[in-house]
Amino acid sequence: MEIGQEVIARCRQLAAHTEEPGYITRTFLSEPMHRVHADLRTWMEQAGMSVQVDAAGNLRGYYDGATADAPRLIVGSHLDTVPHAGAFDGILGVVLGVALVKALGGRRLGFGVEIVGFSEEEGVRFGFPFIGSRALVGTLDDTVLLTRDADGASIADAIRAFGLNPADIGEARVTGPTLGYLEFHIEQGPVLESLNLPLGVVTSIAGQSRLEVRFEGNANHAGTTPMHLRRDALAGAAEWIGAVERDAAAVPSLVATVGKIEAEPGAGNVIAGSVRMSLDVRHTKDQVRAEAVKHLLDAAEQIAARRDLVASSQLLLDQTAVAMDARLTEMLGCAVRASGYVDHRMHSGAGHDAMVLAERMPAAMLFLRSPGGISHHPDEAVLEADVAAALAAGLHFVDQLERVHG
Amino acid sequence: MEIGQEVIARCRQLAAHTEEPGYITRTFLSEPMHRVHADLRTWMEQAGMSVQVDAAGNLRGYYDGATADAPRLIVGSHLDTVPHAGAFDGILGVVLGVALVKALGGRRLGFGVEIVGFSEEEGVRFGFPFIGSRALVGTLDDTVLLTRDADGASIADAIRAFGLNPADIGEARVTGPTLGYLEFHIEQGPVLESLNLPLGVVTSIAGQSRLEVRFEGNANHAGTTPMHLRRDALAGAAEWIGAVERDAAAVPSLVATVGKIEAEPGAGNVIAGSVRMSLDVRHTKDQVRAEAVKHLLDAAEQIAARRDLVASSQLLLDQTAVAMDARLTEMLGCAVRASGYVDHRMHSGAGHDAMVLAERMPAAMLFLRSPGGISHHPDEAVLEADVAAALAAGLHFVDQLERVHG
Repeated sequence: MEIGQEVIARCRQLAAHTEEPGYITRTFLSEPMHRVHADLRTWMEQAGMSVQVDAAGNLRGYYDGATADAPRLIVGSHLDTVPHAGAFDGILGVVLGVALVKALGGRRLGFGVEIVGFSEEEGVRFGFPFIGSRALVGTLDDTVLLTRDADGASIADAIRAFGLNPADIGEARVTGPTLGYLEFHIEQGPVLESLNLPLGVVTSIAGQSRLEVRFEGNANHAGTTPMHLRRDALAGAAEWIGAVERDAAAVPSLVATVGKIEAEPGAGNVIAGSVRMSLDVRHTKDQVRAEAVKHLLDAAEQIAARRDLVASSQLLLDQTAVAMDARLTEMLGCAVRASGYVDHRMHSGAGHDAMVLAERMPAAMLFLRSPGGISHHPDEAVLEADVAAALAAGLHFVDQLERVHG
Repeated sequence: MEIGQEVIARCRQLAAHTEEPGYITRTFLSEPMHRVHADLRTWMEQAGMSVQVDAAGNLRGYYDGATADAPRLIVGSHLDTVPHAGAFDGILGVVLGVALVKALGGRRLGFGVEIVGFSEEEGVRFGFPFIGSRALVGTLDDTVLLTRDADGASIADAIRAFGLNPADIGEARVTGPTLGYLEFHIEQGPVLESLNLPLGVVTSIAGQSRLEVRFEGNANHAGTTPMHLRRDALAGAAEWIGAVERDAAAVPSLVATVGKIEAEPGAGNVIAGSVRMSLDVRHTKDQVRAEAVKHLLDAAEQIAARRDLVASSQLLLDQTAVAMDARLTEMLGCAVRASGYVDHRMHSGAGHDAMVLAERMPAAMLFLRSPGGISHHPDEAVLEADVAAALAAGLHFVDQLERVHG
């Protein structure tokens, strides 16, 4: 079997381990995660790795370096999914990591390679993302473990129910010399496909602002209120949505989205008296993002003032951008070129485990093209040739590290 | 007590007869309607009228003309309310009618005057409006009586439960010579207040189109999808809402409203893949309304095509405009002037009983200013001086009719 074919077949096999028959749904340490661990353990051991599960539920396979005191390269991504997910978000990065070690064919390097399948990244079950990677960098403290899911179970309870001991969570923390972290991940967007490229070298992960924006007007009768005597909150909101789209399109790499809207009272024959909307703004430069948010809120004020409406907003999230490590990223770009592919640099608009790992070690990330830009959906896919390209780039990356650290 | 004060006090007294304590809610032949009938019957009899309730639940007070074969003038409005209503929508017209007869002070005219409190106009309980006025014009057939409310009771059941016999409903139909129909009603809009006028002579009731309009795009990730690769259904919908507002404002007397909007999937971090909206378009000229609807649907198509979205629509209601009788309306305008007020002619953007009566007899309608343009709300009000103005105009109207028909 070609390597791309094998990696995809393994991802599909793991996708069968689900909480919901007919869908791929696998939250933090849910029962099917045992079967995911079992399959991956087999493949890891076949590739010559020793395997354990840490107290945060991360599956960790270690491939020894040439010496006992060798530093390690960590390669990983997450094993959990959103509800009704596709078969590649997260898990492809773990399966590709295992394939990378397998491809070494027993050859020992000047550093060990640890493949990590993070137990949790999506934040579905506890509304708290990156449980697995936080444990690795040592920021999953006891307070966090008290967070409860919809059924009242805490993270600590979930760890115990999986057969692990939350008291040992400190031991999940990476110690000893580490060269850095590499993550393979599907792009989850349409950029690489639109450029007809298989791979993208991630330079940074965008910062993110989330707000709720409201317009208040007057809920009058749609038949008896002439156009010039209206205070229509939805007409004001619509004008502002247009401004959001225009402003974002005018700034390179900025994205701004109104995805949620609620008009009250919400009757066809009543002018909307109030509208609540979401605003999501992302950019790799925090200052650009902050200026964009300010500009959009100013626009809301101006539109409201001109229409005799009242605009207001509430900041719900303000997450700073995270840069990937310059040296590792350059090395990864070089590996992509050495594999015969275009070294396309891009940012990630979504959060990834690499963002958390970057707090503690140099991190790099390689995107694989997402056909149709589709993710978080059963139609999510990846091309065999792109998987082979990523693996080839990964091997060149390891070779470069070996030249420096071997 | 001044007459305006008395009329308002009576409306407030009737408002206490409600299905929901703390609110004014009185649907078709609900239990509190018995107490409304009782109060109005007392006032009607005090004004010299004979009173009966027809089989459709309409309260009908008759003030004899000078001769037994005299034709009649019908003055009326409705006794039912929307949920959480104000104290004047509908019932003011009935109480003002009784005040008009009282003001005649026993004087006999060349025509009789019948005051009708219609049992139903709002369409709340059965989703079918104008039950009372339809019975008067003879268009409430047996099929309609089978219409059921949310509890499974039919209109016929409701009539029986009120102590009436649905088999007698044909007798509710107006027979014999009729001069026409006059309705006093609050404007339920802001036009008279904005012009600083107490009264408005209604020339016609606007026709109405109701549609559902949909935009379909692609529900992609708000972080990973650059602005130029989006097919954002909400951004398209917002552009169209702007076109609806601009187009309506550009055509005299046209109103067009998007009051309801639903975006799917409706998450802050997902670009809207589809949007459904209501469209309500009203004008007194049916051709203007039809052209406006066509123009707005064309605009939706153009916006969708430019954005690679798909627009579609469904027509839910197409109700033609109804003109008030030219001769009676002229007489009413003259009566307003004779009372010392500005004869302001205007259309009604909402439906009224006069629309149904106009099918069978000449109909005229007089609007009273609505403070704040507020209606269908507990803050709904009317000014004492405006009530006195309406009554004065009504008496001049009766005098003019007397000169012609007496």
